Amino acid sequence: MCRWLAYSGRPVSMDTLLFKPGNSLIRQSLSAQRSMVPTNGDGFGLGWYADLPMPGLFRDTMPAWNDANLRSLSEQIRSPMFFAHVRASTGTATTRLNCHPFRYENWLFMHNGKIGGYGLIRRDLEHLIAREFYPFREGSTDSELFFYLMLGHGLEDDAPGAFARTTKAVLDVMAEHKVSEPFRMTAACSDGKRIIALRFSSDGKSPTLFWGQGCDVWVEEGEVHFNRGQGCVLVLSEPLDEVGGSWSEIRESEILMARGGDVQVRPFDPHGGRAAPSAPDEATRYLGA
Amino acid sequence: MCRWLAYSGRPVSMDTLLFKPGNSLIRQSLSAQRSMVPTNGDGFGLGWYADLPMPGLFRDTMPAWNDANLRSLSEQIRSPMFFAHVRASTGTATTRLNCHPFRYENWLFMHNGKIGGYGLIRRDLEHLIAREFYPFREGSTDSELFFYLMLGHGLEDDAPGAFARTTKAVLDVMAEHKVSEPFRMTAACSDGKRIIALRFSSDGKSPTLFWGQGCDVWVEEGEVHFNRGQGCVLVLSEPLDEVGGSWSEIRESEILMARGGDVQVRPFDPHGGRAAPSAPDEATRYLGA
Amino acid sequence: MCRWLAYSGRPVSMDTLLFKPGNSLIRQSLSAQRSMVPTNGDGFGLGWYADLPMPGLFRDTMPAWNDANLRSLSEQIRSPMFFAHVRASTGTATTRLNCHPFRYENWLFMHNGKIGGYGLIRRDLEHLIAREFYPFREGSTDSELFFYLMLGHGLEDDAPGAFARTTKAVLDVMAEHKVSEPFRMTAACSDGKRIIALRFSSDGKSPTLFWGQGCDVWVEEGEVHFNRGQGCVLVLSEPLDEVGGSWSEIRESEILMARGGDVQVRPFDPHGGRAAPSAPDEATRYLGA
Amino acid sequence: MCRWLAYSGRPVSMDTLLFKPGNSLIRQSLSAQRSMVPTNGDGFGLGWYADLPMPGLFRDTMPAWNDANLRSLSEQIRSPMFFAHVRASTGTATTRLNCHPFRYENWLFMHNGKIGGYGLIRRDLEHLIAREFYPFREGSTDSELFFYLMLGHGLEDDAPGAFARTTKAVLDVMAEHKVSEPFRMTAACSDGKRIIALRFSSDGKSPTLFWGQGCDVWVEEGEVHFNRGQGCVLVLSEPLDEVGGSWSEIRESEILMARGGDVQVRPFDPHGGRAAPSAPDEATRYLGA
Repeated sequence: MCRWLAYSGRPVSMDTLLFKPGNSLIRQSLSAQRSMVPTNGDGFGLGWYADLPMPGLFRDTMPAWNDANLRSLSEQIRSPMFFAHVRASTGTATTRLNCHPFRYENWLFMHNGKIGGYGLIRRDLEHLIAREFYPFREGSTDSELFFYLMLGHGLEDDAPGAFARTTKAVLDVMAEHKVSEPFRMTAACSDGKRIIALRFSSDGKSPTLFWGQGCDVWVEEGEVHFNRGQGCVLVLSEPLDEVGGSWSEIRESEILMARGGDVQVRPFDPHGGRAAPSAPDEATRYLGA
Repeated sequence: MCRWLAYSGRPVSMDTLLFKPGNSLIRQSLSAQRSMVPTNGDGFGLGWYADLPMPGLFRDTMPAWNDANLRSLSEQIRSPMFFAHVRASTGTATTRLNCHPFRYENWLFMHNGKIGGYGLIRRDLEHLIAREFYPFREGSTDSELFFYLMLGHGLEDDAPGAFARTTKAVLDVMAEHKVSEPFRMTAACSDGKRIIALRFSSDGKSPTLFWGQGCDVWVEEGEVHFNRGQGCVLVLSEPLDEVGGSWSEIRESEILMARGGDVQVRPFDPHGGRAAPSAPDEATRYLGA
Repeated sequence: MCRWLAYSGRPVSMDTLLFKPGNSLIRQSLSAQRSMVPTNGDGFGLGWYADLPMPGLFRDTMPAWNDANLRSLSEQIRSPMFFAHVRASTGTATTRLNCHPFRYENWLFMHNGKIGGYGLIRRDLEHLIAREFYPFREGSTDSELFFYLMLGHGLEDDAPGAFARTTKAVLDVMAEHKVSEPFRMTAACSDGKRIIALRFSSDGKSPTLFWGQGCDVWVEEGEVHFNRGQGCVLVLSEPLDEVGGSWSEIRESEILMARGGDVQVRPFDPHGGRAAPSAPDEATRYLGA
Repeated sequence: MCRWLAYSGRPVSMDTLLFKPGNSLIRQSLSAQRSMVPTNGDGFGLGWYADLPMPGLFRDTMPAWNDANLRSLSEQIRSPMFFAHVRASTGTATTRLNCHPFRYENWLFMHNGKIGGYGLIRRDLEHLIAREFYPFREGSTDSELFFYLMLGHGLEDDAPGAFARTTKAVLDVMAEHKVSEPFRMTAACSDGKRIIALRFSSDGKSPTLFWGQGCDVWVEEGEVHFNRGQGCVLVLSEPLDEVGGSWSEIRESEILMARGGDVQVRPFDPHGGRAAPSAPDEATRYLGA
């Protein structure tokens, strides 16, 4: 199990959100509050958008709490859209290639959770990676695999649909092999303009997922504050402070789509006929303020 | 604060003591029981004696719980005398050079604790390192510094005396600078034949230290067992299992000396006239069984 | 392109062969003589057999010339059979998982060379890995892939045959995809008792491969000497000294099999009806002794 | 011996100068042209100024030629002032703490060369570090030591003078200990506004040092071009291309001072009465165009 955070909004120094909150992601790397495992010390990663379409990527196998490079980078770099992740391995090796986020051209992807029976079905799943994306597979995690499956399922054209089709494809292979372990995930992806984030599990026991928004975000004495309004969005594994007033929970089987100030949270059903349609519909639970 | 373990006895695979016990050192790296900080993920080290007078040294900055090299080495190497250490930094950087044990010729040294006011008095203390040992100083920890001070205070001729004289020298510099933080330590050194281990603090709040012995040691279902007798000695920051029947506590201001089957635990007084004499005396609390 | 060395014989300190020769493998990591690239600084690995059937494995991404752990381990460990490798990446990432040797149970494998068109055909080749070996694939190199293909082609029962069948399978996939780049390799594997080493290419331009033997090996002033006799065998990418009198070249399309003092070098033809038979035949070029 | 580069001018993507030139610094890490050692693979570092007074710092022990983090950072970050360094150790350990540049508040420092007899005189030199700067010493190199000596010799008020006084202090200690090895260096420091760079040796055999300037810099097919004018300055161990028309050599015992478009190169004499005065004088060889 891992912890992650995605930000979109006016450019902020990444350390504002990574280091300064009382329950910051870096703090969570040493001692997460709402995680099945408290220590997320098996590497970390940072993906951020700047002037280029392709985001920057900085990943290392050191624990995040003690990496001077991470501290310096996050102090120096201001970004309007970034992903950060601290890893607790679920079995695969601690190596930069297994650290999140993963990148393909202008896309970033990160993940928390596990595909049940992964050891058993990995071969079948990897063979489902489309030929054009196969050469980019570098590590051995189920997370990176899910990303390349999504790319083959049309991520670049329809991200929510790619989440649904990929989830369904994985569940189908699990069923075919009679895997009894559950599929559980939270995940986020971005093309540099939008964040799409999912909370889903096959057994209703997904890892937690939260979000918050405002026209502005700042941190004071460890507490995260949003000015009322819209434009800034945070999606994250667990609240960054003890106060918690700033955060809403994303429920099981919901998908969040944020673009600029517009945020929508809708039901997600990988088996549905019109899984996560692109157009708003009545099921949309929240509206960008 | 760190966790450590020293072994002397018949050759054993190092993983027997490092990985197999229920509360093994590697387990402690992720989640120590009796430590002020539960996570000791800022590097680890292994020093072991084999056929050469100089011990082998293997140190890395990865957390011990997830390093495949450490696992493989400790499975393969059988040693009659080894030191293992997992580090939680008290301020200095995470780098191999700051990982314990430290080595000088045939000597190993490892440490848990802190010299109070270290930032303030480091310059004066480093200048006390004898000229001949100065070039070997590689890192910036108070631990390595203490080792090179001990070498200059006659470690090679009289280890308990070197502990006393070095502790006194450090306390004197602390007093001179009116340092109010305490001096607290447990430490162990070896020349390949003996283990000398100390528990001492200036405020009576030393980190814990334990030892156990027998003619043999083995691990079954996570519990550590000694056959009655002598020849094998373990000195360690905290018991390796929950049972605890195998372990005796070393008290505040005591020093343990083990050579083969002979183990002595005596009072330690850095200010005493005859600090930790080499010859047994009435104050000796335990006798090698 | 990489450099490697395999040793079988009476137990020697690994540093005797890794550090002491004038053109030692560690020297080759910084400045190889007969390689297409002089620097092999993209990681290294050591696999050695000791008391257990499974060999020890020590791999890291530091350049070999400057790794204190490697130096210490190779000084301390005496082994009757070990593999050492310094890596120059041909495109895949620098990570421990891509460092040689690779290990499966009691087997080691290491490699120098490249499968032509690897990016294009990797997906097809990986899908040829037998289901039982697939979960062990950790990295992304053609080298590790070749190893797991060999395991599926009966490596454990017939190593030379597995080399032939795997090479043929790879050449077939290359032909199917009309790959014009060549297949070139030297490789070695061991089960702890035998070394089997191959030099082969599709275009007659394999990397170099040498071997030497005697009843004993030692190093004096950078020169490697064998006492006349048998029992010790070295197989290696390039001679370890400038003198060169100790070394014989393995020719294109030859396979070497060494077990104890018995060494045979035979033609290798992946397309042949009886590729590399297990029983000696007239084609055998060298005889042990 | 190492290789380094300092840039000041309009903001450029760091990869423009680090990766794109034919003889780029990253290329030099694998195969330097004018260095005593061709391989500078013992770590690297990047220091850059952005919005804060304190520069960013990114250092790692991987060879620069193969570090994906370095590549990504240097692509993403545009900076008006940065230092880059690839290291070839002259004896001290490969660790991030020994990688250049070194940082103190708003200052950066990097170095190529060696203090003769360093092992012998290190203790005396370290004791010359001013008390206030001593706690910041983290590694064991002569380079970092020189930097902290400079800080104690008034670097923040008078950089050229601090170079002179520190060099003299080091030469004095060398003389006192009758060190026969030479003192040789090129070094650069910056406060975020100016670059001050020195080429000096006690035996007239300093490492090479070059500089170039224009109102603009760009790279085309591996060649570095400056538009005529001023505003951009590059100071570097060796030219970045084979053409070389863009580069002037800094001679032995010369110091360069660049601030915005103003560049001055003057004689440097650590023993002189008015070593490297702050005001321009007749000895100034070049004038900012």
